[in-house]
Amino acid sequence: MLPVIAISIGDINGIGPEVLLKAFHRSDLFDICRPVVFGPPEVLHHYHALLGLKLSFHEVRDAADAREGQLNLFSVPGDFVTEDIGRPTEESGRISIDAIRTAYFSVRDDKAQALVTAPISKEAIAMAGSPFHGHTDMLASFCECGDDVLMILSNNTMNVGLVTVHVPLREVASRITREEVERAIRLGHLAMEEDFGVEEPRIAVLALNPHAGDGGILGMEEQRIILPAIEAQQREGIRAEGPFPADGFFSAHNRELYDLVIAMYHDQGLVPFKLQAMGRGVNITAGLPIVRTSPDHGTAFGIASHGIASAESMKEAVYFARTIVLNRLQ
Amino acid sequence: MLPVIAISIGDINGIGPEVLLKAFHRSDLFDICRPVVFGPPEVLHHYHALLGLKLSFHEVRDAADAREGQLNLFSVPGDFVTEDIGRPTEESGRISIDAIRTAYFSVRDDKAQALVTAPISKEAIAMAGSPFHGHTDMLASFCECGDDVLMILSNNTMNVGLVTVHVPLREVASRITREEVERAIRLGHLAMEEDFGVEEPRIAVLALNPHAGDGGILGMEEQRIILPAIEAQQREGIRAEGPFPADGFFSAHNRELYDLVIAMYHDQGLVPFKLQAMGRGVNITAGLPIVRTSPDHGTAFGIASHGIASAESMKEAVYFARTIVLNRLQ
Repeated sequence: MLPVIAISIGDINGIGPEVLLKAFHRSDLFDICRPVVFGPPEVLHHYHALLGLKLSFHEVRDAADAREGQLNLFSVPGDFVTEDIGRPTEESGRISIDAIRTAYFSVRDDKAQALVTAPISKEAIAMAGSPFHGHTDMLASFCECGDDVLMILSNNTMNVGLVTVHVPLREVASRITREEVERAIRLGHLAMEEDFGVEEPRIAVLALNPHAGDGGILGMEEQRIILPAIEAQQREGIRAEGPFPADGFFSAHNRELYDLVIAMYHDQGLVPFKLQAMGRGVNITAGLPIVRTSPDHGTAFGIASHGIASAESMKEAVYFARTIVLNRLQ
Repeated sequence: MLPVIAISIGDINGIGPEVLLKAFHRSDLFDICRPVVFGPPEVLHHYHALLGLKLSFHEVRDAADAREGQLNLFSVPGDFVTEDIGRPTEESGRISIDAIRTAYFSVRDDKAQALVTAPISKEAIAMAGSPFHGHTDMLASFCECGDDVLMILSNNTMNVGLVTVHVPLREVASRITREEVERAIRLGHLAMEEDFGVEEPRIAVLALNPHAGDGGILGMEEQRIILPAIEAQQREGIRAEGPFPADGFFSAHNRELYDLVIAMYHDQGLVPFKLQAMGRGVNITAGLPIVRTSPDHGTAFGIASHGIASAESMKEAVYFARTIVLNRLQ
């Protein structure tokens, strides 16, 4: 039997429903998994008709009953108002969270082997009263694994892990602690080995400051925090190197030597990643007991329902989820 | 007569002397300018012999006497110890500063039309007792133009201006003021018009925080500082837009619509810039009364004297200096 992949619908007013339907339209993804979408069925039927697709649906009450060759639906109730398409609402936030929680339970209970999440809106989930910033902290909470997770972005040319993610730039430097940097290296190393199937992965760690602090003139975090963290992880047998100045690192060819780059903050990692990903990046949460991937884009409210959103990143997210499932089995 | 371009030698223990000699070796740069190198002649003779080049030198005491078709030398005295190649020293720092100052005087006094600076070491100039962080603040001080300058990086695909440059990441957010953002937009606009010859330039301004602050959840600087600064400059008739989330901006095709991107800090602008520049980027200081460009790389002490440094960025810096001279004349 093909592995079951649970897919949470994301924000129903964004491009999530569209990209996941497109991803499975005439797709060889049906050859590698049994997909189960968690969300209000009427949302999927609406977009299915709007886009003129010809997918075959199958409603399930247990993800393990998912059929091959069909898009299985696990109903998560909610009100869908087409006038709200293109904007975050309390209801779209509530449905986003319910879909993730329900899909997560299926994976936790071994009814499905991996979770793929369509994009949600931070604003909508805040309207719905959620204390979470996004998927990563929400899933870490559901799994009760504290902060011991790492967001990794992956494409054909690079894998990037982030020490801090959704943090205002003003607070980034004070969040860069030796413990956090070591955690990122350790989780990144584990993910490369277990999820990516890389033997003896090489990890490059970026600096926080311009020119890696320029010998202390432009900041001391490299000497006081990042280098000691790298050296501590080296003593554990991990092939970590750095800290490298970020601008020079990405422009030089030696970056091809590394399996994973650890960036200190969101834009430092995501600007070069997205510049190279060409719309095909995948987001992986390392450190969770379950397998979880997602496309690397957001809800894109501005183009919701226009029919122009690319499903490439969603497709890659499903492929990659299945690859991790296989790698973890080995 | 061709314009005279004054070139400061940079740190004599780095790759500066090598790349400037290589840039003029069998080069059509002699067709567009009369170059004058400011530095200790014995340094240039040493590298000239080491690299096996066949350039014709001409010593001058007044840059205006520079000859066409030869590499003119303006002697700046200093001790050159070949054992020190590859590391910053007090003497290499002192010579770096003297060369820049002497070359600057030639441009200020209209003996030369532009200044191109080879890379210096922040560490070396600090050893020599300099209070400056680099070329930009040094030249701003020599010109007595206060902080009213803007560092712009330019290559075939994009121009990037930086609101803050050599600032520890911890201090970046507090340096982002409405005045500084407006200054960057205003100087960037002027440079596009006068130095780059662009009519009605379009300027994209990046956000400081991830996701442009995500409606305030990830930081308030976009709403409180950056957007009001953009709107104030729009009222002055400048076509500025934003703030755009940095990761999405560089990955999207609409960046091709903009003549200049204003980044809030060093790595935000330089990571995507260098990833695209392929070693051919040029650094321009806008806001100075004189024309000044430089290559976008550093002293690269690790490969000094190995003969492997690329002169492409130095060549582009000389070309671009001459282009600005012509644009300012029009």
